[in-house]
Amino acid sequence: MSVKELAIAAKGASYKLAALNESAKNAVLLAMADLLCEKAGNIIDANKLDLIAGKEKGLSDSLLDRLMLDEKRIIDMANGLRKVADLPDPVGEVISMWTRPNGLQIGQKRVPIGVIGMIYEARPNVTCDAVGLCIKSGNAVILRGGSEAIHSNKAIVKVLKEAAEKLKFPIDAIQLIEDTTRESSKELMTLNGFIDVLIPRGGANLIKTVVENSTVPVIETGSGNCHVYVDKFADFDMAISIVFNAKTSRVSVCNSAESLLVHKDIAQAFLPLCAKKLSEKSVELRGCDISLSILPNITKATEEDYYTEYNDYIMSVKVVDSLEDAITHINKYNTKHSEAIVTNDYMSAQIFLNEVDAAAVYVNASTRFTDGFEYGFGAEIGISTQKLHARGPIGLKELTTIKYIIYGNGQIR
Amino acid sequence: MSVKELAIAAKGASYKLAALNESAKNAVLLAMADLLCEKAGNIIDANKLDLIAGKEKGLSDSLLDRLMLDEKRIIDMANGLRKVADLPDPVGEVISMWTRPNGLQIGQKRVPIGVIGMIYEARPNVTCDAVGLCIKSGNAVILRGGSEAIHSNKAIVKVLKEAAEKLKFPIDAIQLIEDTTRESSKELMTLNGFIDVLIPRGGANLIKTVVENSTVPVIETGSGNCHVYVDKFADFDMAISIVFNAKTSRVSVCNSAESLLVHKDIAQAFLPLCAKKLSEKSVELRGCDISLSILPNITKATEEDYYTEYNDYIMSVKVVDSLEDAITHINKYNTKHSEAIVTNDYMSAQIFLNEVDAAAVYVNASTRFTDGFEYGFGAEIGISTQKLHARGPIGLKELTTIKYIIYGNGQIR
Repeated sequence: MSVKELAIAAKGASYKLAALNESAKNAVLLAMADLLCEKAGNIIDANKLDLIAGKEKGLSDSLLDRLMLDEKRIIDMANGLRKVADLPDPVGEVISMWTRPNGLQIGQKRVPIGVIGMIYEARPNVTCDAVGLCIKSGNAVILRGGSEAIHSNKAIVKVLKEAAEKLKFPIDAIQLIEDTTRESSKELMTLNGFIDVLIPRGGANLIKTVVENSTVPVIETGSGNCHVYVDKFADFDMAISIVFNAKTSRVSVCNSAESLLVHKDIAQAFLPLCAKKLSEKSVELRGCDISLSILPNITKATEEDYYTEYNDYIMSVKVVDSLEDAITHINKYNTKHSEAIVTNDYMSAQIFLNEVDAAAVYVNASTRFTDGFEYGFGAEIGISTQKLHARGPIGLKELTTIKYIIYGNGQIR
Repeated sequence: MSVKELAIAAKGASYKLAALNESAKNAVLLAMADLLCEKAGNIIDANKLDLIAGKEKGLSDSLLDRLMLDEKRIIDMANGLRKVADLPDPVGEVISMWTRPNGLQIGQKRVPIGVIGMIYEARPNVTCDAVGLCIKSGNAVILRGGSEAIHSNKAIVKVLKEAAEKLKFPIDAIQLIEDTTRESSKELMTLNGFIDVLIPRGGANLIKTVVENSTVPVIETGSGNCHVYVDKFADFDMAISIVFNAKTSRVSVCNSAESLLVHKDIAQAFLPLCAKKLSEKSVELRGCDISLSILPNITKATEEDYYTEYNDYIMSVKVVDSLEDAITHINKYNTKHSEAIVTNDYMSAQIFLNEVDAAAVYVNASTRFTDGFEYGFGAEIGISTQKLHARGPIGLKELTTIKYIIYGNGQIR
């Protein structure tokens, strides 16, 4: 089947899936989880083909690790599906309903979006997570994973479809594009009318390509150049703990901090303490002139550094003159993801919350909390850094849209 | 200034505008309304230049009518601004806030989107409406109107900015692109990072061009191939009244009906009565074979007819075998705008509401109600036919996004 044929089949099935009630959808998710565990061996065998090809291709160890599936990881995938089954179904909720002077009753009802296209890289667990979240939210899904994981993805989708088919689920609502050439993703990006939204997940290049080439609406996910600003009125212990956590608890993720801003009045006292703590994890600091005068052993930051999401044990540092300077700096260099202030000053906290332009703005907490699980959504399919439709963690609710339902008794205009 | 320079200025001003409180924004809107009335003469003079050029260019009478501004229309524009001032400010509302087990308080706060780009055609009143709605929702706006209205648009924006400047409003938040070549709109469509959303308003070609060429997120507005389905269990008088209203009350608008579906069991009795009523406005009917056998004087509909938004006194007709057939037909041919069923059957009404895929689905009311004013939003900037972010009328709330605000006391992960 061509990509367009897959999409047409998915669109058709999406109407049947949208009509399923919560019990039916949960039964499918639980059956999928069980069969994944039962057939873990098949998936591991397929995954070995990807790992061999990946090694031949010279993939890095960290990429090979992301690609690798063992029994534990497959059980984790299955448990992910079970957790999604446990979450409340967002579909069908009438968010509000009002009556107009002419008697029309107008309601906003939450409904599935329709067909969701996922474009992603080498992590086969994304395949299973995306299927689970899309089914629960009543959406058909078209999966376009990376070539590195194609054998694993085929094996996973085969198991998921087999489990679903037994329950008379409209299995055309789950489509894997087996052609992993550029052409297939290009085609996917222009199937307006068949695909309602594309969600790219992966590195900055992948996301940029999708944003620039897609005519289908996109939810941009991803990059996080996150800052921690330590205000003049910060508690030093709390500030050091938050900076250390935001930078080092997991450097490869988008909600980790990349840049430290410090108010000039406390820089002399604070920076040496903070640098000492960060040295426990050998974090390399790159600073402005003032921070260099306080920490003579660090390197000088370039303009480029302040724009960089290192995803590594590196952090840029800048001493700022004021809260306003910190906010201006953040709004210039950030990627609108997650930003934090550490302060005990009421006004500073309020101004920072109001004026920083980001999906999530924290007072006295680590940027690392921007995550669907940490927010209590139970799951997420990515973190949106755009402003339309979804901002921040994309959970089940964000995979729905609304439909106006209007009850009349003959009204004309 | 280049388009990019305008956009950079707008982005900078958007942060200042976002910080204005409701009183300050309302004062600006009221001052603009007053100055529009005071300087109506200047605007009418500028409009004359557009009208002369339009006549030379051979614009149709209906286009020239849309372009024309007289004192009454300018007073209407001013009153539009006053009405927007009267509407509640959506910005700043915390929609929900919850506390996590670790004590983090997580809230969703409504904030402006940032910079909104409007691409539209020859109606100068859109200029004023867009400025009013964007200011009230705290957004900067970049206006790219059609060349036909450029003198009018310049005159209107000059007055609006003059009124705003006196109140120390950040006037860079209002930008008119005076270059009306294709290049300027192309540039606008790719200014990711400076423009947060583009809203095209106008004909199908304009909207298609923006959807296909924009890398900035777009809210697709517009075309409405709307149906009225007369069910087996319909009240004939109500059905005729709704079909007549939906088709003829204003044929040029997107929420007017283009297609009539009738259940086969009542077609013989209903169609002649309905056709007679529609003949009062000389509506041309184009039907399927069965409808032709009942109404021998109508022409035969082609497949193309069922896809067509006539915006004229023409209506396609189809006799369907069942409710399910009607729904399948609608979901195939419609533009996801507005759809209506006329029925007294409870189950038919519920199934239609659930299964028809459109922004607005009506039971026993005319499709003509899909409109921000009719829904009680007080205003609208267009009607979205896409599923992301906004669906249906785009009012002040739809011109906002959310920001997560998180209050902690030192939480790390």
